[in-house]
Amino acid sequence: MDVLVPWPDLDRTHGAWPEGVRVHVWDGTKDEGEPSKDVLDRVGLWAMPYAAPDAVRLLPELPALRAVQSLSAGVEKLEARLPSGVALHNGRGLHDASTAELALGLILAAQREIPHWAEEQRAGNWDPHFTRSLAGSRVAVIGYGSIGSALEARLLACEAEVVRVARRARPEEDVHAVSELTGLLHGIDIAVLVLPENEGTVGMFDAEHLAALPDDALVVNVGRGRTLDTTALLAEVKAGRLRAALDVTDPEPLPADHPLRTAPGVLITPHVAGGSATFRPRAERLIVEQVRRWAAGQELLNPFPGP
Amino acid sequence: MDVLVPWPDLDRTHGAWPEGVRVHVWDGTKDEGEPSKDVLDRVGLWAMPYAAPDAVRLLPELPALRAVQSLSAGVEKLEARLPSGVALHNGRGLHDASTAELALGLILAAQREIPHWAEEQRAGNWDPHFTRSLAGSRVAVIGYGSIGSALEARLLACEAEVVRVARRARPEEDVHAVSELTGLLHGIDIAVLVLPENEGTVGMFDAEHLAALPDDALVVNVGRGRTLDTTALLAEVKAGRLRAALDVTDPEPLPADHPLRTAPGVLITPHVAGGSATFRPRAERLIVEQVRRWAAGQELLNPFPGP
Repeated sequence: MDVLVPWPDLDRTHGAWPEGVRVHVWDGTKDEGEPSKDVLDRVGLWAMPYAAPDAVRLLPELPALRAVQSLSAGVEKLEARLPSGVALHNGRGLHDASTAELALGLILAAQREIPHWAEEQRAGNWDPHFTRSLAGSRVAVIGYGSIGSALEARLLACEAEVVRVARRARPEEDVHAVSELTGLLHGIDIAVLVLPENEGTVGMFDAEHLAALPDDALVVNVGRGRTLDTTALLAEVKAGRLRAALDVTDPEPLPADHPLRTAPGVLITPHVAGGSATFRPRAERLIVEQVRRWAAGQELLNPFPGP
Repeated sequence: MDVLVPWPDLDRTHGAWPEGVRVHVWDGTKDEGEPSKDVLDRVGLWAMPYAAPDAVRLLPELPALRAVQSLSAGVEKLEARLPSGVALHNGRGLHDASTAELALGLILAAQREIPHWAEEQRAGNWDPHFTRSLAGSRVAVIGYGSIGSALEARLLACEAEVVRVARRARPEEDVHAVSELTGLLHGIDIAVLVLPENEGTVGMFDAEHLAALPDDALVVNVGRGRTLDTTALLAEVKAGRLRAALDVTDPEPLPADHPLRTAPGVLITPHVAGGSATFRPRAERLIVEQVRRWAAGQELLNPFPGP
């Protein structure tokens, strides 16, 4: 029973591997570390390296492969390349804390003007003024799922109010439908997009939604860049009417001369929401648990698409 | 019954003033708005303007003054200038949410490298990398009081662990004594100072404490600049061993050419922790409540020094 994992020594941190399992390591980045043909012939479960898009080249070389564990939440592209008969498992949940944390960091940086103060630090100035706050603000979490719920917990601890919005209304959970969104936005100080990219969400947050936000509101995007109408946003921030903090953009990477980069009141991070230290131990625990289930003949977690 | 308050129209937001109370407004910044001698002769309760140090010049002109409400938490200097027979009430609690919020913002900005990404945004780059996180970190809150408790709630929601430290141990609340601090710091990723300035705290966090922190730890100060040994901190950050995020410095304002401004891994904000939008409604509510109590002949809140 051979499994291929992206990191060495997981048994040191998480306890011994199950009996009968041979564990091989490949991090997906170096050709020289690629497993031998002998090993590849036997691998039944592959926990793929994270953020190593080239790693898929190994797929045709794994004749015994029965299950793939991706560490990403969005696996549409991988699914299309998977040989038939191979089960796909995704990394949903692994990025929730990291993504919610960056969303909160972007909100606080924007409200409390941290990039401005960092510039003042270098410029030699000491010229304090009052700023906005997160406490006391009303925040719409648009695309309320597991990341949105992790963000909500952080926002509530920061004494903000949260309005939950998802594709469909879920009245028992106080979740509003996207169709009600324009009406809701009038009372919102901060709108956070946490939407996946699919047919229903591309261009979803548009000029009408932006126009419904009150003056000086902050638009945050930690989902996918194409869910937000960049042209409409640009017009609003250039006019000084709205502000924005974006971890994802359209297009991505954002060209060096793109006007969003220099528009007033815009803060951009280069798609780093999921990429922080808190991801690694969560990913390791998932891999170890999947190997344990694999060895015991149990169903693996996180099948994609879900049941 | 005459009272002097710093903002107009508090009765519109918070309900009518009590009967028999004449309310006068002075914001402390403009000579021309100063109340007439006739009014000054009658003022019994004065809610002083915030962050307007010149306002104290009115004190000798208020013969009927019996109580002063400051909107600051630290009122030692004001106390020394108060005529005898005038009760002092401070603004403790008004700045807790704002200060805890900036501390969290500084921590997230440092861990997730937000100032770096803001520079990359302007430079035209898109070059993501993994960063540290707050989730999964161990944070020491040094000077655990009302601000520390507000910070702790935020940190726990961010999936960090918190170690409470105060001058004296309070075992029933899991608060460690400062005397145990050096031993505790070995396992700490982020040390946050929330200390007032007094005889016991000046220079308190010193070279020995800094040396006890593990490599790459983050030192945050949102209390008073002089509680942290700046020379010792500078040596650690220049060596690249520790990082720092400081809202308060020693001296303050920090000179334009001070080496802290350009040291690697140092983020500085100019003493703005208390100065955000969330302060104003809290301060207004306190003033309105104090005027209500004053008119009703009840004891005012927040006597200084406390009982």
